[in-house]
Amino acid sequence: MQLFCFSNNQIVPINEAGVPVTDLLVQRGYGIFDFLRVAKDKPLFIDAHLDRFFHSAEVMRLSIPQTREDIKNIVKELIQKNNLDYSGIRMIIAGGDAPDGYTIEHPHLIVIQAPLAEPSLHLPEIGIKLATYNYQRQISEVKSTDYLMAIWLQPWMKEQGADDILYHHDGLIRECPRSNFFFVTDQNLLVTSKNQMLKGITRKNIMEVCKSYGIPFEERDVFMEELKTAKEAFITSSTKRIIPVHQIDQTKYQADYTSSIARKIYDLLVGLE
Amino acid sequence: MQLFCFSNNQIVPINEAGVPVTDLLVQRGYGIFDFLRVAKDKPLFIDAHLDRFFHSAEVMRLSIPQTREDIKNIVKELIQKNNLDYSGIRMIIAGGDAPDGYTIEHPHLIVIQAPLAEPSLHLPEIGIKLATYNYQRQISEVKSTDYLMAIWLQPWMKEQGADDILYHHDGLIRECPRSNFFFVTDQNLLVTSKNQMLKGITRKNIMEVCKSYGIPFEERDVFMEELKTAKEAFITSSTKRIIPVHQIDQTKYQADYTSSIARKIYDLLVGLE
Repeated sequence: MQLFCFSNNQIVPINEAGVPVTDLLVQRGYGIFDFLRVAKDKPLFIDAHLDRFFHSAEVMRLSIPQTREDIKNIVKELIQKNNLDYSGIRMIIAGGDAPDGYTIEHPHLIVIQAPLAEPSLHLPEIGIKLATYNYQRQISEVKSTDYLMAIWLQPWMKEQGADDILYHHDGLIRECPRSNFFFVTDQNLLVTSKNQMLKGITRKNIMEVCKSYGIPFEERDVFMEELKTAKEAFITSSTKRIIPVHQIDQTKYQADYTSSIARKIYDLLVGLE
Repeated sequence: MQLFCFSNNQIVPINEAGVPVTDLLVQRGYGIFDFLRVAKDKPLFIDAHLDRFFHSAEVMRLSIPQTREDIKNIVKELIQKNNLDYSGIRMIIAGGDAPDGYTIEHPHLIVIQAPLAEPSLHLPEIGIKLATYNYQRQISEVKSTDYLMAIWLQPWMKEQGADDILYHHDGLIRECPRSNFFFVTDQNLLVTSKNQMLKGITRKNIMEVCKSYGIPFEERDVFMEELKTAKEAFITSSTKRIIPVHQIDQTKYQADYTSSIARKIYDLLVGLE
């Protein structure tokens, strides 16, 4: 299957697209991105993703040559051209060519679409195990292309028998490399971290449905110790909505998801799409 | 001038070379590199650079498809083909295509050559100003492509009236983004940091000439406070050999380089080439 992408200001077959070897993205790892799920031909929550994309770019001093409308039109054109059933769209701003190898002068947009599994209509019954790791993402409010630590830690994670990593720093929970983290306290309060992490679009949607449906929640600093008394835990992302967590390091969590808060919220998220 | 590079297993014009948009280097910032100076047709200290390149790759779990001899031959071929007077060679290992977007499966080599100014035969008389910044490079023994913080800090650095940044963490001096840092104590002892920074090839050469010529030096943890009583300071890199530092934040250093240790060492470094 020949997929098309947007690169070098045009729609081209993905195998003909390349980032120049002199680009700041290649030589200095300087770039941002955002990733959204496409259901049939509908790019989900694209406005929220574009809000974050433009915010990331602003913080990183990468001016985006296109307007929001331009990008929406490129996404629309790719979706039509690639005609995938279920997919993900990745929008990247590369630092661009820098004559001195260091100064941002020509940032540019890349948009890629690739097939993606459709998430289940109901919360997955099988949870995952997280291994905690002391790490603070740099410039953490930005969705940068820096996944050095996440990828480097994959073999370590597998040694722990874990499926994903939960970053913490200074005794506080931050995030997973590609997901946000939520847990339910022994007082049945849903809690998620507030500072020094990337704020996901699914996380935002969850907080909105919690408000709308009167589900009590707190967005605040979360201490590592709180994990020990949690009743339930889960991670959230645009790709999967919610995945239950059945174990973090040595601590195990409820396996009966039929009565879980995650299940209730999952159904509400499906309703938003 | 049409320059050639090595990419996708062949020597190609640099403007025809591109890193696939699906590469881990592009999507996840996962890659390493090394950079060496070429004097006419002589790649300087290439064995030391290859030692570090292969070490970076090993720590990052990037297997290099080529042998050391292969890479030396590619460098030699590029030097002949590009026929530059004075230049720099950048060797990159990109994470490569990952079907799951996350797992290292096909790392690959890129080699780029570009013109470079020939450093002076004598220590530059004009020093630079450094601004200190609290930051610890991740996986610091590795020359990764992660320069997110360095590039992001450029406007801040200019606001400080500085020419480069000096990273410190936990009260200890680490390194500059592209250079190592040395200073001379009030006891005339040359000192450089030992831990949690990238160990430069020029730094290694300096320690060797110090041993050979009986110049007293120490490689150890260096405290920020020590900067206040330093008699002399300088940074070192493969590109420039040594650049004197005349100011760090508010502290100024000797401007008379005729009697400096930096000057003596600079002459010895020129002799090594």
